[in-house]
Amino acid sequence: MSQIDQAVTIELAERSYRILIGDGLLADAASYAGLPRASTALIVSNTTVAPLYADALREALAGRYTQIHELHLPDGEEHKNWQTLQLIFDSLLSNTCDRKTTVFALGGGVVGDMTGFAAASYMRGVPFVQVPTTLLAQVDSSVGGKTAINHPLGKNMIGAFYQPQLVVCDLAVLDTLPAREFSAGLAEVIKYGPISDMAFFDWLERNMDALIAHDRDALAHAVRRSCEIKAWVVGQDEKETGLRAILNFGHTFGHAIEAGMGYGVWLHGEGVGAGMVMAAELSRRLGLVDGEFVARLNLLIQRAGLPTKGPILDAADNAGRYLELMRIDKKSEAGEIRFVVIDGPGKAAVRAAPDSLVREVIDACCA
Amino acid sequence: MSQIDQAVTIELAERSYRILIGDGLLADAASYAGLPRASTALIVSNTTVAPLYADALREALAGRYTQIHELHLPDGEEHKNWQTLQLIFDSLLSNTCDRKTTVFALGGGVVGDMTGFAAASYMRGVPFVQVPTTLLAQVDSSVGGKTAINHPLGKNMIGAFYQPQLVVCDLAVLDTLPAREFSAGLAEVIKYGPISDMAFFDWLERNMDALIAHDRDALAHAVRRSCEIKAWVVGQDEKETGLRAILNFGHTFGHAIEAGMGYGVWLHGEGVGAGMVMAAELSRRLGLVDGEFVARLNLLIQRAGLPTKGPILDAADNAGRYLELMRIDKKSEAGEIRFVVIDGPGKAAVRAAPDSLVREVIDACCA
Repeated sequence: MSQIDQAVTIELAERSYRILIGDGLLADAASYAGLPRASTALIVSNTTVAPLYADALREALAGRYTQIHELHLPDGEEHKNWQTLQLIFDSLLSNTCDRKTTVFALGGGVVGDMTGFAAASYMRGVPFVQVPTTLLAQVDSSVGGKTAINHPLGKNMIGAFYQPQLVVCDLAVLDTLPAREFSAGLAEVIKYGPISDMAFFDWLERNMDALIAHDRDALAHAVRRSCEIKAWVVGQDEKETGLRAILNFGHTFGHAIEAGMGYGVWLHGEGVGAGMVMAAELSRRLGLVDGEFVARLNLLIQRAGLPTKGPILDAADNAGRYLELMRIDKKSEAGEIRFVVIDGPGKAAVRAAPDSLVREVIDACCA
Repeated sequence: MSQIDQAVTIELAERSYRILIGDGLLADAASYAGLPRASTALIVSNTTVAPLYADALREALAGRYTQIHELHLPDGEEHKNWQTLQLIFDSLLSNTCDRKTTVFALGGGVVGDMTGFAAASYMRGVPFVQVPTTLLAQVDSSVGGKTAINHPLGKNMIGAFYQPQLVVCDLAVLDTLPAREFSAGLAEVIKYGPISDMAFFDWLERNMDALIAHDRDALAHAVRRSCEIKAWVVGQDEKETGLRAILNFGHTFGHAIEAGMGYGVWLHGEGVGAGMVMAAELSRRLGLVDGEFVARLNLLIQRAGLPTKGPILDAADNAGRYLELMRIDKKSEAGEIRFVVIDGPGKAAVRAAPDSLVREVIDACCA
């Protein structure tokens, strides 16, 4: 029935794991072969995804676990907080889950990030599997071991580096994804071009219409290439002491947008879309790329169905508000904002920039 | 002024660190030489310890950090929960602390465990230093990287393995420790004898009075030898997949006592004291040690000022209540309780035992 079209391996010594990519993998018991033995599993999903896929996952796992518990969290970025995380701990404890209990995250980035942090922290760490059901989670958040919840004062501020045992990317599930969320996922796909692979960027320019139409071959290629690039970066720098920061291209501005609008108003990928335009424009004003590159990126982001302008966060001092929010970003050091810039198409760098220049960029790129 | 009498190294490759043991180390700037550079530090303490030692620590750190923030948590095991942990995150974020901010835990096991988990989770990990001010923290909880908070359904259920950069054990601070807490710390010192070093157990029998009198040389030896044994065990099994479990001798029964009485009613070390007697009696009934060994251990625990009988947790079915509480211990697997037993004096093993035998032990050892 199902077919593993692609497999990408994240090489992290004893924490290495495979990302399976293909059609119908979620419901196929074979996808989960090789997971550590355990008597109990917990499937964590949300109230939107669970009615669509929880039964299929449960059936695929029925041969492996004596007991399979389920927990359906409320849906949305605004629930990515401690209160919701507690529901996972409550479920694990009230079901007497032990250190071998395997926890499955069935959903998008919010479910994956919260479930991963719960798995990292429950009894100081239990096995964890990602079954991402959004494009964003398949190409980015489910891969690489970053887990977190939000704090009222900052996004993803509390979390852990914790690698899953396995990531199962079923392309078929993307057919039930709302168009707006599909577009948001494309932001993270597009990102991989400017930071490391302009041939992939060219491919995306040629295949954006096919992706929007959910062409299965185009999707398989986009997910695989995204995971490969991410795997390569994470393999070099698991804990983001250096190189890994380039994966945050567009995210410094994007996080400010998300925080400034209130989490959940703009989707993460929408913030990254507008944020990439701002970061590219900053790169241009720093003399690192030309206007043609910025225009190409702008157009591709627009074709993906994403915003290319940031929102006005403060009518009185919009740039000041952006700067204030960006200073508490995790990449900041001693209050200095670290921007991921494009240092020539296909190559990223991390650097500071004068406030005055950043203000000009924000003024030019918001509406 | 101060003198580093002893230094023990925890060997964990790139996560190795030193434990300094001596008189007056807390207030000596030299103790903190070699820590990673940062502009900001946060000292987390509690309302009991901070008035005694926070100023001295702040002065010792003044030359290293531009900004030193302080946070004083409420004191007591009953505050080892998410609400208190949030206070640390709130402080880190409201003070715009970044990824290099170094977090100092100044206090006992509760402060150390919570601060360590906060340091592990803030921005997915910031540098962390333990300055333990109780005997229990100096010989056990500050060494080895276990961090956690309690959940209403279980002790230390949510946490991380996260190694500090440095542990500073100042013997002078033990002079301000209440006698009851000092005794509680001795439980963890005594533990190291039966599980791995009967020569140390003999030494403790000869020197218990000197320790109770806070003799500095006796204390230095007891802290150093405890840290050495713990370092050896942790170095072999950082994440408790096997050997490390022996450090929990007495803890399975002890955790049941703490949970059953309500956290904070019995001190952790008091639960471990009575718990070691129960675990030794279980070992005897399993034919692993003789009655003389149990009597020696019982007497030493008594001389340390600790309870040697467990409390009655349920008048109707006391053993049943202990069993119920032990089944949700982290060492349980699929509901089977794993006991640390003494397999001949000086050697520990982990094994299951029939409920009927465990019931006999509980009935014999509670009053």
